[in-house]
Amino acid sequence: MSTDRNERHKKAMQRRKALVDEKVAQAQEERGVLIVLTGNGKGKSSSGFGTVIRCLGHGYKAGIVQFIKGTWDCGERDFILERCPEVPFHIMGTGFTWETQDRERDMEAASQAWEKAEALLKDESLHLVLLDELTYVLKYGWVTQERIFEALKNRPREQSVIVTGRAASKALCELADTVSVVDVEKHAFQAGIKARKGIEW
Amino acid sequence: MSTDRNERHKKAMQRRKALVDEKVAQAQEERGVLIVLTGNGKGKSSSGFGTVIRCLGHGYKAGIVQFIKGTWDCGERDFILERCPEVPFHIMGTGFTWETQDRERDMEAASQAWEKAEALLKDESLHLVLLDELTYVLKYGWVTQERIFEALKNRPREQSVIVTGRAASKALCELADTVSVVDVEKHAFQAGIKARKGIEW
Repeated sequence: MSTDRNERHKKAMQRRKALVDEKVAQAQEERGVLIVLTGNGKGKSSSGFGTVIRCLGHGYKAGIVQFIKGTWDCGERDFILERCPEVPFHIMGTGFTWETQDRERDMEAASQAWEKAEALLKDESLHLVLLDELTYVLKYGWVTQERIFEALKNRPREQSVIVTGRAASKALCELADTVSVVDVEKHAFQAGIKARKGIEW
Repeated sequence: MSTDRNERHKKAMQRRKALVDEKVAQAQEERGVLIVLTGNGKGKSSSGFGTVIRCLGHGYKAGIVQFIKGTWDCGERDFILERCPEVPFHIMGTGFTWETQDRERDMEAASQAWEKAEALLKDESLHLVLLDELTYVLKYGWVTQERIFEALKNRPREQSVIVTGRAASKALCELADTVSVVDVEKHAFQAGIKARKGIEW
């Protein structure tokens, strides 16, 4: 490796550091944020759960409501219930809507789960609330947007919230501070590979 | 809510279930997968760590090598080190390359970290290996693509691997079974909100 290349690398990295430092200096408002993780790609719920353990790793408290996946075997849920018993964790009591095929039952279960979410969104001790798969509740109209947005807007100033799920509405993305869209470039499933326990769920 | 709407919902969900069931029936190959989580949006590393706890929740074993972020305070790392001491976890001993500004030191540290990764990629007891921020090692040429790809290709058949980081190369995406691209639709940072401990890191 030539000295030239090392020197060029050093100069490029000095410029990069100056840019990064400048951006960091400009961002000075401190408050909790609303993050939406949407799109059709793999990684939304797992990112939400990963941020929960990030938060716990710093000694903060977090709470979780899991919509939709109630009857679905789910490793991250088992993990949190077993190893993080201090985390309030509520699970909507029905499965995917194409499994239940019963709109009234879905609505009732969603409404009950949303009440649990409302309680977490008032709890000042929580640094983070994960609302896993909440987008479907909005999409299917099981709980009104008005009721959901009111609780999100009135949460404690220091509390961050992560909402996951496909097809996040435009209104939800406008309300959010950060929106990541996870796109599928390719998926093993499309190539005939079976969904993998411990990886896909 | 009218009976009509409930009936329409039921029929739509029956069609949806038939489609889902058909796709599931078609995917029959069973083996570990290589997943790449790339793009500039928030959520890649946290998704990797979330999948680690998903895997542990099912009673499987997982291992982690964290490149780049060695000197960076990081809640998910503290969490795993404290609560999951059974997880092999190796950390590359230098920080972001624009902080070190020293290419030779970065290369040496990356090479040492890659040796740890090679050991995990031979360990049949591991259901999942997370190679967090590995894309930068490839991008900066700290370890050759040939050496990295050889270990990825020759890993145990049942082992899955997650590679995270921006700017994953075309060759890496071709090798992968699943590629998710996390795009920024918006980010709190752009609106002047300071990166949040327990959320962003």
